[in-house]
Amino acid sequence: MSTAGKVIKCKAAVMWEANKPFSIEEIEVAPPKAHEVRIKIVATGICRSDDHVITGGLVMPFPIILGHEAAGIVESVGQGVTSIKPGDKVIPLFVPQCGECNSCLNTKSNLCSKNDIGSSAGVMPDGTTRFTCKGKAIHHFIGTSTFTEYTVVHESAVAKIDSAAPLEKVCLIGCGFSTGYGAAVQTAKVKPGSTCAIFGLGGVGLSVVMGCKAAGASRIIAIDINKDKFAKAKELGATDCISPHDFKKPIQEVLTEMTGHGVDYSFEAIGHVDTLTAALASCNMNTGVCVMVGVPPSGSVISIDPMLLLSGRTWKGTLLGGWKMRDCIATLVSSYLEKKFNSDVLISHTLPIAKVNEGFELLRAGKSIRCVLLF
Amino acid sequence: MSTAGKVIKCKAAVMWEANKPFSIEEIEVAPPKAHEVRIKIVATGICRSDDHVITGGLVMPFPIILGHEAAGIVESVGQGVTSIKPGDKVIPLFVPQCGECNSCLNTKSNLCSKNDIGSSAGVMPDGTTRFTCKGKAIHHFIGTSTFTEYTVVHESAVAKIDSAAPLEKVCLIGCGFSTGYGAAVQTAKVKPGSTCAIFGLGGVGLSVVMGCKAAGASRIIAIDINKDKFAKAKELGATDCISPHDFKKPIQEVLTEMTGHGVDYSFEAIGHVDTLTAALASCNMNTGVCVMVGVPPSGSVISIDPMLLLSGRTWKGTLLGGWKMRDCIATLVSSYLEKKFNSDVLISHTLPIAKVNEGFELLRAGKSIRCVLLF
Repeated sequence: MSTAGKVIKCKAAVMWEANKPFSIEEIEVAPPKAHEVRIKIVATGICRSDDHVITGGLVMPFPIILGHEAAGIVESVGQGVTSIKPGDKVIPLFVPQCGECNSCLNTKSNLCSKNDIGSSAGVMPDGTTRFTCKGKAIHHFIGTSTFTEYTVVHESAVAKIDSAAPLEKVCLIGCGFSTGYGAAVQTAKVKPGSTCAIFGLGGVGLSVVMGCKAAGASRIIAIDINKDKFAKAKELGATDCISPHDFKKPIQEVLTEMTGHGVDYSFEAIGHVDTLTAALASCNMNTGVCVMVGVPPSGSVISIDPMLLLSGRTWKGTLLGGWKMRDCIATLVSSYLEKKFNSDVLISHTLPIAKVNEGFELLRAGKSIRCVLLF
Repeated sequence: MSTAGKVIKCKAAVMWEANKPFSIEEIEVAPPKAHEVRIKIVATGICRSDDHVITGGLVMPFPIILGHEAAGIVESVGQGVTSIKPGDKVIPLFVPQCGECNSCLNTKSNLCSKNDIGSSAGVMPDGTTRFTCKGKAIHHFIGTSTFTEYTVVHESAVAKIDSAAPLEKVCLIGCGFSTGYGAAVQTAKVKPGSTCAIFGLGGVGLSVVMGCKAAGASRIIAIDINKDKFAKAKELGATDCISPHDFKKPIQEVLTEMTGHGVDYSFEAIGHVDTLTAALASCNMNTGVCVMVGVPPSGSVISIDPMLLLSGRTWKGTLLGGWKMRDCIATLVSSYLEKKFNSDVLISHTLPIAKVNEGFELLRAGKSIRCVLLF
């Protein structure tokens, strides 16, 4: 019996207020309105940005259904949806691609103005939500909300992928893998033979390592204070792994000495103001490029000595690796299927959605790279 | 009678201590040592960076002979100098080009490691000075010191130019003109049809306007709180001239509204932390490029919201317009002689060196663009 057009009752991990555990609740998911798509989520990764909402580092309205790195199967579509049909395998996109705004019309940018990252409204484009629980409206998270069996997203915020794709694996292409890999190959455009430094070896940082390796970097220096991360970094292509705790001098001076004059490209995949500044100072003063990948807590301020830039450095930022996702995701998934990269190695844990709180504990304890939740 | 090999007694404008007027003194200029060149200065411009030393914004040792934007004729050369001979017309370079350091070997950088901008030692590469006055050693200024009839510079810090070049005009190619023009055509590589904003319409800022115009920008928005600068900016290619004092909202919001989504390229040619931040926020969030041209006072700290970069902006800095001066200056002077640009319009005042203090008063009062001092 088709569920199309009907309210679906299903399980979801609801975050009722900040700094509390998730509650597994039965929620109601309204049918998709015009130009919307309702998706049965199969797998969703746990990303640091979800945790930032819980701790208040990323300010969003509560109650909310978090989750933004997922893959699923279309259950039904609203009026006017032509690009996607029920049964399609899809990845929801927290950076949509409306195709009409300045950013979408510019071939070099990917931050569609229809995104809900900056405004943090926590609602669908029409200003309402599709989720209710115990009679209360539950907010959406950056247009995705994937910690639920069923979610509703706008047509511009979903991309169809190959029907052969294993959803419990390619969900990482929705955020962590693409963010890090794209920062290297797309935003920095790392050149063969160059030297790179990556600050932070979580799922995103390790994906930067993979991107630098794929781009042909000859030296890849991986940096973390948690040495448990080093084995994986080396497996993925890091040539050197160092911990700032092993040195008395600032890490930027260590990197400058290791390379003679600083790396060609530095990446910060933590989102900490101190390491963001250290990453800038670590690339060589004349032609070094530093890419900001990690998202610092809301309201953060980064302070720098202007001479770091005046001498010739370039500082860039990137969201979702600079990819225009609706255009690029099919290629990324195909590359995965052709084994051009192996993002599976980033999946350290797989848990049922009921164990979502355990998954976040693993993240906070630095014990997981990517924990994938299954429905 | 040749003066080669002898100490030359001549006039110079000496700055004995901070925040005092210049004293016109008779000084002794030692002969050039090996790989050094002694130059008879014909004309030297007054640049804001000279004033920064006087006010303490740029920390240098006193007593000192300032001046770094000049043109002259080689009087004699030290042992081993082969690239330049007495009688050659030359421009001294405050960013040298040793040809051997990492920066010189990199085709994309120009900040030769032999520069004295960062270390501020105020001496020749061998650690001594060539100037004495009243028995005291007088410091050099960033390897040039041009407020004197004769100066000594290292061979790597001087470039030969066309013998047809009018020295009282092309002296501006030694700093102000090249810095601004290069920021647009060389560092930013402004594309035809793009929109640009320039903060600060002094000699450097107006040269950025000229560079944007030469690069084919379709809209050039010139910004200054001194509206007296607007006529010249329009003459040089500015399509809009605005003063932040005419708006209640922040200037970055004004520029975003004027252009729909921010300019493609923004340039700060003042060196003020507030305008440096405003310039970054003024370029469009997805693909905007902001170039830091102005040099803030020593010890300045710039604070930014990291989202300005994460959304996709690029922030760069440039010194001396990114030109490798010994390689490029001949071309720049030839372009001047072929009237490809007209830097003469930047020269608002010409004064004898004896009136150096008057020249600085004009600068501080915002009444001059470039004041050229003649010997």
